[in-house]
Amino acid sequence: MSGGHEAPEGNVSTTQPWAAATAGGRPAGPSPHDGDLMYTWATELFPLHRSLTGPGLRATLDYLGERLPAMRRHRVASGTRAFDWIVPDEWQFRRAYVEDEAGERLIDSAWHNLHVVGYAEPIDTWMTIAELDAHLHSIPEQPNWVPYVTSYYQRRWGFCITHAQRERLRRDPQRRVRVVIDATLEAGFLDYADLVVPGESGDEVLFSTYVCHPSMANNELSGPVVQAALARWVHSLANRRLTYRFVFAPETIGSLVYLSEHLVHLKANVRAGFVLTCIGDERAFSVLASRRGNTLADRAARHVLEHRVGQYQAYSFLERGSDERQYCAPGIDLPVCSLMRSKHSVYPEYHTSADDLSLISPASLGGSLDVCRDIVAVLESNVRYRTTTLGEPQLGRRGLYPSVSSGEIDVRTTRYRDILAYADGSLDLIGLAESIDAYALDLVPAIGTLRQQGLLVAEP
Amino acid sequence: MSGGHEAPEGNVSTTQPWAAATAGGRPAGPSPHDGDLMYTWATELFPLHRSLTGPGLRATLDYLGERLPAMRRHRVASGTRAFDWIVPDEWQFRRAYVEDEAGERLIDSAWHNLHVVGYAEPIDTWMTIAELDAHLHSIPEQPNWVPYVTSYYQRRWGFCITHAQRERLRRDPQRRVRVVIDATLEAGFLDYADLVVPGESGDEVLFSTYVCHPSMANNELSGPVVQAALARWVHSLANRRLTYRFVFAPETIGSLVYLSEHLVHLKANVRAGFVLTCIGDERAFSVLASRRGNTLADRAARHVLEHRVGQYQAYSFLERGSDERQYCAPGIDLPVCSLMRSKHSVYPEYHTSADDLSLISPASLGGSLDVCRDIVAVLESNVRYRTTTLGEPQLGRRGLYPSVSSGEIDVRTTRYRDILAYADGSLDLIGLAESIDAYALDLVPAIGTLRQQGLLVAEP
Amino acid sequence: MSGGHEAPEGNVSTTQPWAAATAGGRPAGPSPHDGDLMYTWATELFPLHRSLTGPGLRATLDYLGERLPAMRRHRVASGTRAFDWIVPDEWQFRRAYVEDEAGERLIDSAWHNLHVVGYAEPIDTWMTIAELDAHLHSIPEQPNWVPYVTSYYQRRWGFCITHAQRERLRRDPQRRVRVVIDATLEAGFLDYADLVVPGESGDEVLFSTYVCHPSMANNELSGPVVQAALARWVHSLANRRLTYRFVFAPETIGSLVYLSEHLVHLKANVRAGFVLTCIGDERAFSVLASRRGNTLADRAARHVLEHRVGQYQAYSFLERGSDERQYCAPGIDLPVCSLMRSKHSVYPEYHTSADDLSLISPASLGGSLDVCRDIVAVLESNVRYRTTTLGEPQLGRRGLYPSVSSGEIDVRTTRYRDILAYADGSLDLIGLAESIDAYALDLVPAIGTLRQQGLLVAEP
Repeated sequence: MSGGHEAPEGNVSTTQPWAAATAGGRPAGPSPHDGDLMYTWATELFPLHRSLTGPGLRATLDYLGERLPAMRRHRVASGTRAFDWIVPDEWQFRRAYVEDEAGERLIDSAWHNLHVVGYAEPIDTWMTIAELDAHLHSIPEQPNWVPYVTSYYQRRWGFCITHAQRERLRRDPQRRVRVVIDATLEAGFLDYADLVVPGESGDEVLFSTYVCHPSMANNELSGPVVQAALARWVHSLANRRLTYRFVFAPETIGSLVYLSEHLVHLKANVRAGFVLTCIGDERAFSVLASRRGNTLADRAARHVLEHRVGQYQAYSFLERGSDERQYCAPGIDLPVCSLMRSKHSVYPEYHTSADDLSLISPASLGGSLDVCRDIVAVLESNVRYRTTTLGEPQLGRRGLYPSVSSGEIDVRTTRYRDILAYADGSLDLIGLAESIDAYALDLVPAIGTLRQQGLLVAEP
Repeated sequence: MSGGHEAPEGNVSTTQPWAAATAGGRPAGPSPHDGDLMYTWATELFPLHRSLTGPGLRATLDYLGERLPAMRRHRVASGTRAFDWIVPDEWQFRRAYVEDEAGERLIDSAWHNLHVVGYAEPIDTWMTIAELDAHLHSIPEQPNWVPYVTSYYQRRWGFCITHAQRERLRRDPQRRVRVVIDATLEAGFLDYADLVVPGESGDEVLFSTYVCHPSMANNELSGPVVQAALARWVHSLANRRLTYRFVFAPETIGSLVYLSEHLVHLKANVRAGFVLTCIGDERAFSVLASRRGNTLADRAARHVLEHRVGQYQAYSFLERGSDERQYCAPGIDLPVCSLMRSKHSVYPEYHTSADDLSLISPASLGGSLDVCRDIVAVLESNVRYRTTTLGEPQLGRRGLYPSVSSGEIDVRTTRYRDILAYADGSLDLIGLAESIDAYALDLVPAIGTLRQQGLLVAEP
Repeated sequence: MSGGHEAPEGNVSTTQPWAAATAGGRPAGPSPHDGDLMYTWATELFPLHRSLTGPGLRATLDYLGERLPAMRRHRVASGTRAFDWIVPDEWQFRRAYVEDEAGERLIDSAWHNLHVVGYAEPIDTWMTIAELDAHLHSIPEQPNWVPYVTSYYQRRWGFCITHAQRERLRRDPQRRVRVVIDATLEAGFLDYADLVVPGESGDEVLFSTYVCHPSMANNELSGPVVQAALARWVHSLANRRLTYRFVFAPETIGSLVYLSEHLVHLKANVRAGFVLTCIGDERAFSVLASRRGNTLADRAARHVLEHRVGQYQAYSFLERGSDERQYCAPGIDLPVCSLMRSKHSVYPEYHTSADDLSLISPASLGGSLDVCRDIVAVLESNVRYRTTTLGEPQLGRRGLYPSVSSGEIDVRTTRYRDILAYADGSLDLIGLAESIDAYALDLVPAIGTLRQQGLLVAEP
């Protein structure tokens, strides 16, 4: 072993716009401010009564739109077809309560948005507690939590309460109560929004989250607030290589509507996509694979989580449950995986009133944003690189290699040599990084130097 | 996670002929009657003196033919070439014995068919026990078992006895005995049979077993009786999708003759094939892989054994030893594996008189038949499925999904959704089942429902 | 299982030239004489002061050329471009020393060639020990070893001494000494050599080692002496199928010059190549993979090491460090791996005076030569084989199978049958051997017999 050369990496002023924009490849470190801001947004959005349609959904999009001026609002009318589905009537909910003959309120949606079954049909009538009980939902195993229940596509009404309260009501089954759901279910609109941040290339990265869940924090205000903060950050970057698309829509029907309107474009342009959901609690990071399991989205998410976070939970597409169901459906087949902390259906507070603002935190929202920004940074630099010389270049002549052969070769030199040894034009940045056991973002400065030296080029 | 729908699977009346014929995909459960019947057949066939050729082989085919009216008989003359081989003379065996000067019978083929070496040339002469000993075969390690020995392609004579008896004979080496083998080895015929049960498609499933072994139960009456029962069952099915071919022939030379006569047809049409051998004992199930190791036959056999039986022994093609040697030979390359319980050469009684009717049982023959029927059922439904909608279909509208979002989603609903999520037209039934960790036959009813609803089609 | 045949393998006189030349495929066993001879060569070459260029390098090539009459000498002038590199000036070194005012020699290159920094520029001046110290190299952790240091591409001067001696010198920092390096660094030549041993085919096997290291035994006299002995042995073989190319050149710049002159030819013809380095010590065998990791060279080296040696160390290309850096560089991409005992940079004596003749031995050099010869033997027979019959051939008729069916089938018979069962024309010898869990060279005699019998042919 031998072959001497010369001197270490100097100040790097790379010609790669992205690397310049992000201080040498890696986005700036976690900003406590970002976490606080996202948590504030979540706090302000929490009380709104979101559903698939209706004023709470619109107010949520209004709120986000104020923070994302480039956001575009869209709506489709009830009855619109979206592939196999039909957009339902709009639910305009005002108030729901149960009171007894003495006027005592036994249940009131003013106390918690979850008390009314989502999309409940209107009612105003008297009945016994025994009759009411058939319309109550509770969780015997968690007697102090209110469950989240909806009935979007079949008309029914109902209330959700703690099991403890239900037990109390059941003590007097013949007690008469007035049951009121003040709402309308009539032809209207389904609202959603998107934000497209253009880059040099038409190749797109998709982020998608949903905005239809009322008064739950992890599922689902964490997705909207992280995605909004991410969109603002992406928008602020100079010289983006890629185009970014952020979709905020009601779950299932919203993503189906969006897909039905944009399918040809999305199939032609989306290179990687991520559903952001349940991404605000402080527990594990998780990635749920696309159906194919090894798309660019899967590879980027796993690479960032492995190198930036270390431990994470990898779920198969068999355990899917959010809008990746639509994005990865046969015939749609977009390269989309889901990025989460605790996966939906897995954490105990899921779909209950216990999924409140105490379950998420500024720090965990900030950490999730950091992961998303790293994914963006990796994708920005994720082109195939090829050396320009045959054989190793003489790094010493360029000051990239120690001129004396003794002693240890430092990490930067090893990195230059490893990049040059593997960059045969067949590997993208992630593949190159995994070949040399490194984090992709840690390679970006060295790649910048080597490109500047004319030793490496990006394949078109 | 969200997106509600409506109500459970009703009465299924599928349009898929096979599923209808088999009560929703899965063949009827094990019939004790089938096991008893197969055991009776084995008992009645046991005494016949089978060999590569001759009257015992013909009687065996006659017996099976009475039970399989559509069976076709074939024969080729001695001297016929089959690839590299030449069909040997026919062996007409009548009786073989050794008796002393007092007329006492020391060995007599009437006692056990294995006492004479298979294909022994005729002899009638006097000699000493010492001279006879060079023509005796026994097993020192199993002194009470008679070995099974043949010499098909070199003329010799000999007797097989227990080692205990041989030790007794050796006590008086000079005792003179008359050695008689009353047989002829002359130009004649090699007999074999097949049965083709046509289906809608010319795609064929091959089952093959051999009928040349005398008076041994597991090896090899289990193969013929299971295959005969299977052929009857297949014949009884309405609306077969596939064509089935059952071959009953002497081992090696018989399969070579069969292949030499049908090679072009078989290579063009056989999609999966199975050698049935040693399939009657009560020990493990085994599959011996084809040379390529991952043909449809291998996949179907492993899938059924894994899901229906649970534990089984997987052998490499390196451990081959029956007619898969020919079916998988280079240039022939049919997709054929061997299905067994205890593999030939592995169980202690193999090729001895201890492989008698006590080694097999109605229950184990019945269990083997069940596995074969499941393999047939899987292959019948083993087409590629594709969804007809883009995105998930609205199952609730069709009564295939609960209309309320609370609580657990039941197994049937999950199955519908999993099938629809993976059926992209690239996976056959086995691949689809393995993608969603299910037994293929358990998916058939749900697939029937989804096809009936127009949500799924089979690829042509 | 059944199907009788006839009798064992007789005397094998194969028609395969190579197999004949090597006693049935396997080279003759280790010759103690070879080990002694190689060790003698190493001993005689040890004192020469080798470097990238200059008289020591030339004398080394002269010495090897006397033992390899067909060796060809080449040279290129200083300033010649080789891809990204420029051949440096020639270093003509005569003597270097440090002496004090009393004329006492404190350091003298006559004591050990490593005392002078390789490619040191000439100097003759007085200075203090304190001033000299900035030009000294030593190893604090190994205070009695002299390190090996070079500065090929930046002019500097220096001495290498034991750390113990350095500590002694430092006791009197103001002592004045005369520092002399009697050398020239002027336009001259870079010398190298190769040897091409033609075979029936233009397909080439490359062996490459380097001849630029002064007075170290494992790194790097072991490579040159093993390669020279291997070249002599290959040259002595009758009927080579393949062409062999042996390159002796200075590391890095030498292989780059060689590649730049022969790249088109080498890319078109080299099927497998091996860098021989650090191959004389008695510790592990090692193979360092090519970048692609599964070239014919990798497969052959691993197969031989696994079957002939048993345990060996497998290194990834990430741990590269010798001329495989150039041979496997992007755009060059030759199928080359490195064959070693203790890998460079891994063993403690590496690049120090402790890498002396006690570190290598006749036995270990002989064992390394044996491995190389086996690799050659494997590659000679490494063609794809195909059976000539459909179905199994009747081995008994050809005396290759026992005619009676009883008892065990012997190893040779199993080997014939396994070869015939797997030789479908798609597998080369190594692939065939690995399919049947055998050492490739152990198959060669049986393959010879089967070819002689007309049952097997080599694919063109």
